[in-house]
Amino acid sequence: MNNKIRIGIMGYGNLGKGIEAAVTNSTDMELVGVFTRRNPETVKTLTNAPVYHTDDIMNFTDKIDVLMMCGGSATDLPKQTPEFVKYFNVIDSFDTHAKIPEHFASVDAEAQKSGKIGIISVGWDPGMFSLNRMYAGAVLPNGKDYTFWGKGVSQGHSDAIRRIEGVKDARQYTIPVEAALEQVRSGSCPELTTRQKHTRECFVVAEDGADLGKIEQEIVTMPNYFADYDTTVHFISQEELDRDHKGIPHGGFVIRTGTTGLNNENHHVIEYSLKLDSNPEFTASVLTAYARAAARMNKEGLKGCKTVFDVAPGYLSPMSAEELRKKLL
Amino acid sequence: MNNKIRIGIMGYGNLGKGIEAAVTNSTDMELVGVFTRRNPETVKTLTNAPVYHTDDIMNFTDKIDVLMMCGGSATDLPKQTPEFVKYFNVIDSFDTHAKIPEHFASVDAEAQKSGKIGIISVGWDPGMFSLNRMYAGAVLPNGKDYTFWGKGVSQGHSDAIRRIEGVKDARQYTIPVEAALEQVRSGSCPELTTRQKHTRECFVVAEDGADLGKIEQEIVTMPNYFADYDTTVHFISQEELDRDHKGIPHGGFVIRTGTTGLNNENHHVIEYSLKLDSNPEFTASVLTAYARAAARMNKEGLKGCKTVFDVAPGYLSPMSAEELRKKLL
Repeated sequence: MNNKIRIGIMGYGNLGKGIEAAVTNSTDMELVGVFTRRNPETVKTLTNAPVYHTDDIMNFTDKIDVLMMCGGSATDLPKQTPEFVKYFNVIDSFDTHAKIPEHFASVDAEAQKSGKIGIISVGWDPGMFSLNRMYAGAVLPNGKDYTFWGKGVSQGHSDAIRRIEGVKDARQYTIPVEAALEQVRSGSCPELTTRQKHTRECFVVAEDGADLGKIEQEIVTMPNYFADYDTTVHFISQEELDRDHKGIPHGGFVIRTGTTGLNNENHHVIEYSLKLDSNPEFTASVLTAYARAAARMNKEGLKGCKTVFDVAPGYLSPMSAEELRKKLL
Repeated sequence: MNNKIRIGIMGYGNLGKGIEAAVTNSTDMELVGVFTRRNPETVKTLTNAPVYHTDDIMNFTDKIDVLMMCGGSATDLPKQTPEFVKYFNVIDSFDTHAKIPEHFASVDAEAQKSGKIGIISVGWDPGMFSLNRMYAGAVLPNGKDYTFWGKGVSQGHSDAIRRIEGVKDARQYTIPVEAALEQVRSGSCPELTTRQKHTRECFVVAEDGADLGKIEQEIVTMPNYFADYDTTVHFISQEELDRDHKGIPHGGFVIRTGTTGLNNENHHVIEYSLKLDSNPEFTASVLTAYARAAARMNKEGLKGCKTVFDVAPGYLSPMSAEELRKKLL
């Protein structure tokens, strides 16, 4: 008898590929297939996992334990997650922070009816960073949180540069300011502006004959994206971009400093950091661990929409509770 | 109506005092009293909280929601935690790693009968460090964990030095080796010996006329405690010890490096660190957050022995689930 957790992947971009790799590396899971809106015959998977059209998903209601939602937060997930939790336990990485309460409500309404579990906003931020903000805040109620992102590639900012006239390709890195990190770690609880926390570095491939000065000016003054930051622009060749900037690294820091004692006389620093070669593969690895939790929790009769705050840590590990106590406590 | 969580403190040493301060700083809790085996009239609390003799505890079964066990792991907690979970929800900081399974079993047997909750081995190691080892291992199954402790005071090692003939007082610091930390962060998964991971630094007050060379030799060659480490000994005056080394700082690092991708081609580093001015006050703050969890979980009908792996993170926070999703996710 096969007790492996059966995983389906809905959407096959970078995140879907990351999940394919993560499931392959998890001995207690198996990949049932990838589901796509494209013509399945045109999609080749990394591991030769079967590819099906999204329209065929209803043939898999008893063949998949957890369906991993790999669409985008803007338009895909707000529709797909509540729709598919009617039939499957689902995990998504919904990351539009302001709309999380609304997304939670719509997924929960369907999940309560279907008896399935939907874990939303899983990944590293939201996800592991949220967890660390929460644990640190509960332990040190008198304190202040800081989140820094990077060094890493911001896809949205890279896209914004690519839309400028005369730009052929671009890659943008968000970089935390080391001096600001040190100031936070000192426990001085500084108030930091956007400009003081992060810088932005852009690598741009311009079209032949483009006005480089004008491109640079358009980038550094772009409202919301760059105007509030110290931004550096480097013009490089397509070959250099492809050679030196093809990865999708990211990471960041969640730091809470706080005090204890009747007169707040003792200072403490809690710091959590990630340094990731591949943002989508790490995010996929977090989603995969939460898929294990969803399958187990649903087997115990739990249902509804959940977030990382609602999932007892032990559910994520392939080890039994006894093993965890013995080996990791 | 008073909805505050009512806390009792069993044992009034450094940890008990830390809990007194932490409860005072928590707006959703109130301290009912401190329980001691000493004559209560001889014990003066920091906040003038009432002091009772341990023998009177049975008068409080309906007045305390969570009893915080602040005795030692060697002899107190193995007896007290299973005994008091018969009547109260309890939290302890049992830290004899090898005996955790046994302690869990004895607390669980009583808690299942009484319908109470006992959360054991709470603090930072075991506790927050255990959680971070577990989360990181679940997310990056292909990887390796490292734990470093310090810079901080080891009470047991300080005591061992004080037992040497000619030593009046002493304070020992455990210090992680920076080069080893860097090696681990590089993702090279080094095999590190005890000596390579930590050094030990000792500040010793000798009695007048004592043989300093002999004391130093006894320290650095002491089996189990110092022989496996590079140890530095400084002789100082009692005044200097009292002035410069009266704090109880501690901290440490939990680092996991691992890979993702079909060919393990992408490297990732997850790092959690603590820098604590007061080891007992921080430990007490963790216990206090878990007291909130114990009270809530028991109110929901949950019972039995639990560890940090079994407690969904949201239970620790005074915020509601809605607030957590809105503000911290």
